[in-house]
Amino acid sequence: MTKVLVLNGPNLNLLGTREPGRYGTESLQTIVQRLMDKAKAAAIGLEAFQSNAEHELIERIHRAAQQGVAYIIINPGALTHTSIALRDALLGVEIPFIEVHITNVYARESFRRHSYLSDIAAGVISGLGPLGYELALYAALRNAKRS
Amino acid sequence: MTKVLVLNGPNLNLLGTREPGRYGTESLQTIVQRLMDKAKAAAIGLEAFQSNAEHELIERIHRAAQQGVAYIIINPGALTHTSIALRDALLGVEIPFIEVHITNVYARESFRRHSYLSDIAAGVISGLGPLGYELALYAALRNAKRS
Amino acid sequence: MTKVLVLNGPNLNLLGTREPGRYGTESLQTIVQRLMDKAKAAAIGLEAFQSNAEHELIERIHRAAQQGVAYIIINPGALTHTSIALRDALLGVEIPFIEVHITNVYARESFRRHSYLSDIAAGVISGLGPLGYELALYAALRNAKRS
Amino acid sequence: MTKVLVLNGPNLNLLGTREPGRYGTESLQTIVQRLMDKAKAAAIGLEAFQSNAEHELIERIHRAAQQGVAYIIINPGALTHTSIALRDALLGVEIPFIEVHITNVYARESFRRHSYLSDIAAGVISGLGPLGYELALYAALRNAKRS
Amino acid sequence: MTKVLVLNGPNLNLLGTREPGRYGTESLQTIVQRLMDKAKAAAIGLEAFQSNAEHELIERIHRAAQQGVAYIIINPGALTHTSIALRDALLGVEIPFIEVHITNVYARESFRRHSYLSDIAAGVISGLGPLGYELALYAALRNAKRS
Amino acid sequence: MTKVLVLNGPNLNLLGTREPGRYGTESLQTIVQRLMDKAKAAAIGLEAFQSNAEHELIERIHRAAQQGVAYIIINPGALTHTSIALRDALLGVEIPFIEVHITNVYARESFRRHSYLSDIAAGVISGLGPLGYELALYAALRNAKRS
Amino acid sequence: MTKVLVLNGPNLNLLGTREPGRYGTESLQTIVQRLMDKAKAAAIGLEAFQSNAEHELIERIHRAAQQGVAYIIINPGALTHTSIALRDALLGVEIPFIEVHITNVYARESFRRHSYLSDIAAGVISGLGPLGYELALYAALRNAKRS
Amino acid sequence: MTKVLVLNGPNLNLLGTREPGRYGTESLQTIVQRLMDKAKAAAIGLEAFQSNAEHELIERIHRAAQQGVAYIIINPGALTHTSIALRDALLGVEIPFIEVHITNVYARESFRRHSYLSDIAAGVISGLGPLGYELALYAALRNAKRS
Amino acid sequence: MTKVLVLNGPNLNLLGTREPGRYGTESLQTIVQRLMDKAKAAAIGLEAFQSNAEHELIERIHRAAQQGVAYIIINPGALTHTSIALRDALLGVEIPFIEVHITNVYARESFRRHSYLSDIAAGVISGLGPLGYELALYAALRNAKRS
Amino acid sequence: MTKVLVLNGPNLNLLGTREPGRYGTESLQTIVQRLMDKAKAAAIGLEAFQSNAEHELIERIHRAAQQGVAYIIINPGALTHTSIALRDALLGVEIPFIEVHITNVYARESFRRHSYLSDIAAGVISGLGPLGYELALYAALRNAKRS
Amino acid sequence: MTKVLVLNGPNLNLLGTREPGRYGTESLQTIVQRLMDKAKAAAIGLEAFQSNAEHELIERIHRAAQQGVAYIIINPGALTHTSIALRDALLGVEIPFIEVHITNVYARESFRRHSYLSDIAAGVISGLGPLGYELALYAALRNAKRS
Amino acid sequence: MTKVLVLNGPNLNLLGTREPGRYGTESLQTIVQRLMDKAKAAAIGLEAFQSNAEHELIERIHRAAQQGVAYIIINPGALTHTSIALRDALLGVEIPFIEVHITNVYARESFRRHSYLSDIAAGVISGLGPLGYELALYAALRNAKRS
Repeated sequence: MTKVLVLNGPNLNLLGTREPGRYGTESLQTIVQRLMDKAKAAAIGLEAFQSNAEHELIERIHRAAQQGVAYIIINPGALTHTSIALRDALLGVEIPFIEVHITNVYARESFRRHSYLSDIAAGVISGLGPLGYELALYAALRNAKRS
Repeated sequence: MTKVLVLNGPNLNLLGTREPGRYGTESLQTIVQRLMDKAKAAAIGLEAFQSNAEHELIERIHRAAQQGVAYIIINPGALTHTSIALRDALLGVEIPFIEVHITNVYARESFRRHSYLSDIAAGVISGLGPLGYELALYAALRNAKRS
Repeated sequence: MTKVLVLNGPNLNLLGTREPGRYGTESLQTIVQRLMDKAKAAAIGLEAFQSNAEHELIERIHRAAQQGVAYIIINPGALTHTSIALRDALLGVEIPFIEVHITNVYARESFRRHSYLSDIAAGVISGLGPLGYELALYAALRNAKRS
Repeated sequence: MTKVLVLNGPNLNLLGTREPGRYGTESLQTIVQRLMDKAKAAAIGLEAFQSNAEHELIERIHRAAQQGVAYIIINPGALTHTSIALRDALLGVEIPFIEVHITNVYARESFRRHSYLSDIAAGVISGLGPLGYELALYAALRNAKRS
Repeated sequence: MTKVLVLNGPNLNLLGTREPGRYGTESLQTIVQRLMDKAKAAAIGLEAFQSNAEHELIERIHRAAQQGVAYIIINPGALTHTSIALRDALLGVEIPFIEVHITNVYARESFRRHSYLSDIAAGVISGLGPLGYELALYAALRNAKRS
Repeated sequence: MTKVLVLNGPNLNLLGTREPGRYGTESLQTIVQRLMDKAKAAAIGLEAFQSNAEHELIERIHRAAQQGVAYIIINPGALTHTSIALRDALLGVEIPFIEVHITNVYARESFRRHSYLSDIAAGVISGLGPLGYELALYAALRNAKRS
Repeated sequence: MTKVLVLNGPNLNLLGTREPGRYGTESLQTIVQRLMDKAKAAAIGLEAFQSNAEHELIERIHRAAQQGVAYIIINPGALTHTSIALRDALLGVEIPFIEVHITNVYARESFRRHSYLSDIAAGVISGLGPLGYELALYAALRNAKRS
Repeated sequence: MTKVLVLNGPNLNLLGTREPGRYGTESLQTIVQRLMDKAKAAAIGLEAFQSNAEHELIERIHRAAQQGVAYIIINPGALTHTSIALRDALLGVEIPFIEVHITNVYARESFRRHSYLSDIAAGVISGLGPLGYELALYAALRNAKRS
Repeated sequence: MTKVLVLNGPNLNLLGTREPGRYGTESLQTIVQRLMDKAKAAAIGLEAFQSNAEHELIERIHRAAQQGVAYIIINPGALTHTSIALRDALLGVEIPFIEVHITNVYARESFRRHSYLSDIAAGVISGLGPLGYELALYAALRNAKRS
Repeated sequence: MTKVLVLNGPNLNLLGTREPGRYGTESLQTIVQRLMDKAKAAAIGLEAFQSNAEHELIERIHRAAQQGVAYIIINPGALTHTSIALRDALLGVEIPFIEVHITNVYARESFRRHSYLSDIAAGVISGLGPLGYELALYAALRNAKRS
Repeated sequence: MTKVLVLNGPNLNLLGTREPGRYGTESLQTIVQRLMDKAKAAAIGLEAFQSNAEHELIERIHRAAQQGVAYIIINPGALTHTSIALRDALLGVEIPFIEVHITNVYARESFRRHSYLSDIAAGVISGLGPLGYELALYAALRNAKRS
Repeated sequence: MTKVLVLNGPNLNLLGTREPGRYGTESLQTIVQRLMDKAKAAAIGLEAFQSNAEHELIERIHRAAQQGVAYIIINPGALTHTSIALRDALLGVEIPFIEVHITNVYARESFRRHSYLSDIAAGVISGLGPLGYELALYAALRNAKRS
């Protein structure tokens, strides 16, 4: 069974309460549950993991390689712009991944315009709210089928 | 009936023959036809327009405002990085739009990392091949319903 | 009879409807008509041309040289910041010109602060709304008389 | 009676003798007198003040607020490019102002391209010689009437 | 009872032994105890937390929101210059905070001049040694009273 | 008797009326009076001086050296970002000083982020309103006692 | 028969009249005719096309691929420095090309030093006047023979 | 007995499996074991620690000071380029250290060219594969003997 | 009789007491007296003026033009790096001048490396202490004789 | 008899063996011999000189002025990007020269994009292999005839 | 017999006398002798060459290719930061090399942080004093054996 | 007897013939002879050396240390802006030196504004023509006497 891993970085546990005008009112649990329903319907395995700690995300990525995860969907939060270690973890396991941002990172502070992941990602989806995760999942399934 | 406009900029008429290792083997017609089928199934109107001329894209956007187009999906090609006039056209008509790139613009020449449209877009989808248009259409429909 | 040419670039055909809080509610036609009235009163010839296409503006400038146009008043819109070809056209015909911007370009996105025309212009008027064209016309007449 | 204040910064007392090829042969007194004549004809009050001292200009601006000055026309000379204190004075009194430059600042040393005032000005007129003051006065009157 | 949270980032547990010529000879415990005494005297609650881990600081900030903490005093140590995640945590909980630095960050390596927190802080106190925490506490109390 | 000098730069005479949403409603006189009361209570001498002129501030600093002033508290206003001469005056007299800003300079225009004084200051307090002066006075007294 | 396409961009139709001190006194027609004579003598096909419109140049390049053009000689004029779309057209058709500039672009405004084409060109010839086209034609023939 | 501490940062636990073309096929354990053998032969104590967590590395460095470690050999992985906190930990304990990189960091992405540690290191060895650790150990022993 | 004017900018009145390790122990009066003696011996007129105020220096330069001063020797102090108004005054009067710095400005803070005067000066002498003024006087005399 | 000097800089003696995939398989001798044959046929004098030493190239240029050389063709190799002394030598002798590069310098490391010679060259030919020298010779002859 | 070449650039002949606090007290001869002893013991050939002339180093590298040198150890001194010609020589001969610096180049002037050689080196060793050469020799031997 | 060494770098042998409008009409020999006369009159030894080769200048500086030269006067020509090796030679011998430029380097190409020597020089004299050497000699004598 194809396995997809959904990773969320720092502060995404606050979804629903954090700046709702910007990030929306849905909690991360609600979003993840919907992804799980869709994955189940598509007969693929989906695991989700959120952490505020860079090293826990890195180690979850390492473990993904051992688990044979086929695709990663990652919203690295603020680590997008600061973590080369996360980049190296993804380079190290060679699992294709899609980078998702809930908000439009290009419409915010200038330091959010640079990502340490985008150039090695399979794709980037940004600004489309929680829907971005679903689109990424759909793309992951399509890509997984193709290969 | 909700109307969606799909715009493609310079050189995208070459799709299928242009650098197929990078842009894929599907022609723009095939891609557009699939979007039209999906739009029809969803009972919305979809028009598509490709041009190698900046001013034709600008004028198509102006006309969209008169036609009551609800959403624009735009792959501006190279104009992404050079055309402030296109930005102004989109600002002028105030129609929400999603920016789509077939290739991963972050993995190419450094001048492709900057977009004159992203910060005013509803969202950006990049690197996912022709599928990006479909995801954008799906997001446009969802957003149109919400509002 | 002294001839003045008034050029307007991309998206200025939207004046009156485009972001009226920023650009005002007057249409370009109204503005041009007022300029024509003033020119007539001053017994000089005035022609106006708007285009969304860089090459049409360039070719209009080329033609101006053949017509013996004495002064150009140009609001290049977004091309201000991106078109070296427009600069070269103006350099090529050696007709003195005044650059006009309806809005205050210094109070907007940083990329609007640079103009490819200003350093070769006779003068620049910016931020004074449609009145800017009138002031430019007045200056053009005064300069034309002096020389 | 509407009051307009015309301010001139450092070295503008040299007008007429300073680099006449660049700045023209009219003295500041002649220019100011013409403005006063025009103001009188338009039944508005006009005062003019030149100083080589940043603090005197700042304090003149402070006093303008107490005098109920409706509009300021300012040619800050070299302070344009170096004085944040002047900017703060203008921000502090909240009197709309037009920035005037006799020469084309974009055609000179690169450090003259940046102004600490332009983004908070009502408008900028540059390169049109002493005529620039008259155009600014005309625009001030028009704006004053409108509001 | 008004609650204040005092946060200290990486390496601040070394205070007293780490580069005493630069950071002084007082331990963090001594400093915190003094703050607690002052808080007690002012009848407000004060908790202090030091961590070398970015995620523990982030999670402590999240918890502060649940505890109804009214004010945060934070010395983020080196994370000042590198952690957007910490910024996002503070933005997420919307608790006003004062940024404190024991040393004068402007007198050291150039990379210490930029802070990812300062522009969203209520205030910044830097270079005044351990006294900075006390001043921040005093300011927090004053501000808390005002609101 | 220990002497403290409180210096305020350009436009700070407008306090109370200048952009009250940003700078508060207290006049400089009120603020200074409160500082004087506190100084008196602490049995130290305090003098205050405001000027819109860079050279008057410089000369006041020179005189401070002759008067044996032990500490300077300075809010240089806009000169913070432009005056190397002020820096040289403070370097020249070798009196320790604290730099105070009423507003949060990091949350405003980018050119306000650089100070020509901070790296040679004993400390910097910014964003805490008029309270910043009091904190600086308190710090100055503490430091003066220590040395 | 080997086919060579000679492309000229915006304002090159002015050759002979435009800034003759810089661009020389020969018209584009004269230059092209000489190239045609040389091509004829070498028994190869040569077509020439000048346009002030970016999209016409792009579409001419697209057509060249269908015509089996073996080599392109292009003087993109001002588009050299601004058109990524032209670059993409040339990348798309994979026809080797030589970039020619009549004037020495390195001896002019700094923005003329960057070309969006040079790094993908077979070669660049600049500053040698109309002779540059002939040298390029000679090189094209030599290269075409080699391959 | 002289003590040496060997630290490895994020993702170095992947050695042997991670991009073997770049990082080689030896596991970290094998490398560390060899170092231990060499240390034993030289009658010095050697401990090794790898962590994906910045704070664990920081705290291991703090502990090293308490243990009387004479020399640190550190391969900070991606933290080299992003962690000022690691720099501060090393500055705080004042233990001389050598920075080792398995790959040639100068031949990779440009962001790998800057290190937050190099300027405070005793030395840097880069690009020589796992052998770099041995050379560093040898240098540490030599230096330790000298001092 | 040839007239030379010696100008000194802000803080140079502190010479002899200000950072004597850097600026030496001679007072400005001593230095000026020596210059006057030398001028007298050479039968030329020499006046000296020091001011901490930019506008007083500017106005002294304006007056020099009226007095027929043949040469200016100027040590602008910190204004070297910040005053375009001083540059404009010197440009305005067209009196040749030599820029003198007592200290080596290239060996200090990086902002002291740029001068707004050097490119329009006849020459620059820096780092040679008070002797620099004498050398400048000698050069002025030589140049004056030549012309 | 018109004299042409062909200069080659450092490492060009390796031609034929150095990176043949990039620089081709012809030796410098072969290339020079062909140029000499062509010069002979055109009845002009041609001398060639290669050196790995900057000063030998400089002195050869100095001597060229004494020999009455009419034109220089120079491939400065790596000195293109680093030698201002070579620029000064060419400026000093005022002999027109063409800069030739065998490879396309724009398609290589970014530091090869800047030349210290191009802006003072008569022309630049780059990327066309050894043929570039021949084209330059042809251009030199044409130019020599014209003047 | 494997041959190793040890190259030293400008000013390294001063070792032992030049800034001994920075470069140590050993002469280059002593260092080279030790390397020769070690090479002899390892039964490999080692030659050493120092020159203050860039071209002599370049030509020594050219000769190394003819001699079949297997490895180069190079301390280019100041040429590290300025010589592209040296880079090209090393690229041209394709002999693997290790770059050695006696001092820590990252702890000195900022211009010493960039090397024109590092990205094409097999490895870089910096800051470890004369020992760096020995480590490089050891690494060269190990690498030579491997290949 | 005090010894002074006068060094001149590349192309200065052309003095008198090279761009006489910029460099004057005196030959280097004439200039040096005058310096020798002055030195003789002052009873000090003066040697002069010009070379177009960086390494010869470096080695002349090395030899100066052995000769007990007390002061160096150096006009490094173009090496000013490119030679770190020359800087290192001067740092290595620790002989105080004055940097002289005949022309005003600040009024020329921007790359001439940076010197690799100025920050370690005793002083810099620029723009005063051949007289600069004499002033430097005078300063060297004065400084030598003082120490």
